[in-house]
Amino acid sequence: MAEPLVELKQHLTEIDDLERALGVLAWDQRTNMPAGGASARSETLATLGGVVHERFTADETGRLLEAVRPLEEQLDHDGDDASLIRVARRDWEKQRRVPKELAEAWLREGSNAHAAWLEAREASRFDLFLPAFRRVHEIALRWAEYMEAGDSPYDAFLDEYEPGMRTSEVKAVFEVLRPALTEIVRSAGEPADDSFLEGDYPVETQKAFLEDVLGHFGFEDGTWRLDPTVHPFAIGIGRGDIRMTTRYRPDNLRALWAAMHEAGHGLTYQGLDPALDRTPLAGGPSLGLGESQSRTWENLVGRSLPFWRGFLPKLQQRFPQLGSVDLETWYRGINRVAPSLIRVNADEVTYSLHIILRFELEQQLVDGTLALEELPEAWNARMTEFLGVDVPDDAHGVLQDVHWTRAAYGYFPTYALGNVLSLQIWQHVRAAIPDLDAQIEAGEFGELYGWLARQLYRHGRKFTPTETLERAIGERTIDPQPYLEYLRGKVAGLAAV
Amino acid sequence: MAEPLVELKQHLTEIDDLERALGVLAWDQRTNMPAGGASARSETLATLGGVVHERFTADETGRLLEAVRPLEEQLDHDGDDASLIRVARRDWEKQRRVPKELAEAWLREGSNAHAAWLEAREASRFDLFLPAFRRVHEIALRWAEYMEAGDSPYDAFLDEYEPGMRTSEVKAVFEVLRPALTEIVRSAGEPADDSFLEGDYPVETQKAFLEDVLGHFGFEDGTWRLDPTVHPFAIGIGRGDIRMTTRYRPDNLRALWAAMHEAGHGLTYQGLDPALDRTPLAGGPSLGLGESQSRTWENLVGRSLPFWRGFLPKLQQRFPQLGSVDLETWYRGINRVAPSLIRVNADEVTYSLHIILRFELEQQLVDGTLALEELPEAWNARMTEFLGVDVPDDAHGVLQDVHWTRAAYGYFPTYALGNVLSLQIWQHVRAAIPDLDAQIEAGEFGELYGWLARQLYRHGRKFTPTETLERAIGERTIDPQPYLEYLRGKVAGLAAV
Repeated sequence: MAEPLVELKQHLTEIDDLERALGVLAWDQRTNMPAGGASARSETLATLGGVVHERFTADETGRLLEAVRPLEEQLDHDGDDASLIRVARRDWEKQRRVPKELAEAWLREGSNAHAAWLEAREASRFDLFLPAFRRVHEIALRWAEYMEAGDSPYDAFLDEYEPGMRTSEVKAVFEVLRPALTEIVRSAGEPADDSFLEGDYPVETQKAFLEDVLGHFGFEDGTWRLDPTVHPFAIGIGRGDIRMTTRYRPDNLRALWAAMHEAGHGLTYQGLDPALDRTPLAGGPSLGLGESQSRTWENLVGRSLPFWRGFLPKLQQRFPQLGSVDLETWYRGINRVAPSLIRVNADEVTYSLHIILRFELEQQLVDGTLALEELPEAWNARMTEFLGVDVPDDAHGVLQDVHWTRAAYGYFPTYALGNVLSLQIWQHVRAAIPDLDAQIEAGEFGELYGWLARQLYRHGRKFTPTETLERAIGERTIDPQPYLEYLRGKVAGLAAV
Repeated sequence: MAEPLVELKQHLTEIDDLERALGVLAWDQRTNMPAGGASARSETLATLGGVVHERFTADETGRLLEAVRPLEEQLDHDGDDASLIRVARRDWEKQRRVPKELAEAWLREGSNAHAAWLEAREASRFDLFLPAFRRVHEIALRWAEYMEAGDSPYDAFLDEYEPGMRTSEVKAVFEVLRPALTEIVRSAGEPADDSFLEGDYPVETQKAFLEDVLGHFGFEDGTWRLDPTVHPFAIGIGRGDIRMTTRYRPDNLRALWAAMHEAGHGLTYQGLDPALDRTPLAGGPSLGLGESQSRTWENLVGRSLPFWRGFLPKLQQRFPQLGSVDLETWYRGINRVAPSLIRVNADEVTYSLHIILRFELEQQLVDGTLALEELPEAWNARMTEFLGVDVPDDAHGVLQDVHWTRAAYGYFPTYALGNVLSLQIWQHVRAAIPDLDAQIEAGEFGELYGWLARQLYRHGRKFTPTETLERAIGERTIDPQPYLEYLRGKVAGLAAV
């Protein structure tokens, strides 16, 4: 009979291997798979996903977790073994709460709602989405009843993506953000010209530029890929097998920032402590902390003046048509602030307003104060209120995002929390690396990546988001001020450039 | 309680889904995976492979197979359900014979022997390979003891790749082939000039040409891919997701035939009866029959005069340097007959001699009449005898192939059986499609593919190789004469062109 801890680790390692197999299948589905493979792939993913779920939620997992309890009490809380047991127990207890039938119904109805959404968005008619949406919405509410009671019904959803976070904490942050962001948008004045981002930009040349950039960021040779896809994502199959994607268009350059965003996720994965390999701790503590790092590399690096001081000449070498665009024009253009309809195209300032709108609507849907059929009207009214734009149709409004097809409430706010956290962490980076701007301009990212990996990335999922933040920067609460100061400074600087 | 057959099918379908997941992982490993992902991928493959093996060899599978026995006796032998039960039972019984420890030891020692082989081949020293080879060889012999006793100890190995075939049958075929092939090589005279196959051939242009060819062969849009790799292979993830590979070199055109070879495997998969989707019957009845079809599309189509009458002008359009090579010169060059050292580079005539050599040596290794340490000497002597070439070193001799690193005895002969079978089937194709040459020249492959799919491909693994051959062409035995007649005619024709 093996020691219980050895047995538990072996059990979790095998499950993690299977999770990684799912990762490869999902990556392949979104990058390489011929269209004809779609239905078979869904079956394969469902079967393998079922195997993973079955193995993890098995009584056997509970028995092993119980057997290591005496040992756990003697272990250092911060150690890898104690963390593994703690996180696995939390995951196991959460997953065991949900009846298998409900989990399966959620997947199935989510899949149906996704199909209905594609059709509804094509026709720009929310009413076509409503029946399927209602079914998945009701399943989600039933699911929430099985979860631990929080202060608010929305807490259960939030906990899926930001473990331990309360709705009230997010509200407090967003209540500061909303008026301040509205004010910053107003102060930004006339939107800058960014027409040079459109033009004849061959994909192969973009790709070559990006591979150069990502190499500088700190990815090691032979450990990563960057591939084209429709909806960009990043996935770590292993620390030596990190896969990022972007959406290339031959008529504009927006793939550059999508790729740097995904590179941020990739670096987070690369920075994991090797001791966490093949364990459920090889991941991130929350979506918000994850997003803080994708935003760091996309925005704080990839839309900064020092970065482009170094890299614009390289880009101009590859795209001679940019030779006439000077650094200031380029910088103003890529940081253009302008209210718009679509979240994924929003600039750094207005982006979080799109999120706050969704967060407020989601809470009302969950607590029942907003009926599903009233959603388009409520959406449109808030878009006018928050951003001063008129929504012309559902496709450019309430139907624009995929998240509600699986009633993934609680997901959206993590995007804005990521923005906030990125600056909260960044001010510590700046304090630690006084000549950061000069390093970025020189294309040297070793010290930046090293600091982030050491302070943040290496912990993986060992700790809660709050514990992780504390270990990274000595703070336990989310503070919107550094983010707002950054935006104010940036917008003022843009006007002055 | 579900009907036993429904339950069995569900069980096998899930296992098949997991097998397909293994297929994607293996494809990815050999096409896309960054080098840094290698060790994690081995673990993932081992874990998922273990899950598949465990599920299939479980008592539960046996219980379900037992429960359907009464039903099976009432079913038509040729029906899908009866075939599914029959094949699954055969697979289950074979896999159950082998102790798990032995199967695992074989995998592990095979992996060690592979590493030793890479090193030994690099150093061109068989003695470096010998200790690891001995271990895996001894495991293979122990494995064979668990298998059903055949007429010869080699039968157990052969049965892995050609179910039901006896060593004596292969011997009988090869005894006809060997002297006849030697005679044909002699009659071929001076090797033709094929120097035009070397030159500046950009990979992208080769790829574009091949995608055009494969489109003509009958692959449907959005159901296949062709990717670069080191050792070409093809894999069917589903009928709508067929993946072929080739090895491009920018300095020669040999990737064309490697790709057409893999396309043959791909078409075999595409031609499966859709009723076999997600079952263990979605595959091929034997390696020999599979190889017969890859050889058909590589050689009988892809090295034929009609094919190049149609496609050489297209190739010349893409590679203007070939403009000065006339059809006859081209045809003679791509069919150049010349004894050589390396199997994978061998021409259509000498290829099977390389195989017969290996088949004879394998039998001696298995029955103990040749000691492992005597293998290089025996190899070199036979190369001189069979092909008249002197082996300069082990790397160009006994160490050239990967198969013996896992003591995969019985695999090699299927290559030559494939050559033989390809012609045996081809003569029926010719009889059924009188204007086949004109169709091929016109780039029309619909009737050819249709005939092969209808007669052969659609059956998948439903029947034994012998039963499959009978259903395809009404013959039950392997006949080397059509193959020899084809080669004699081709060699005579080459001299006369």
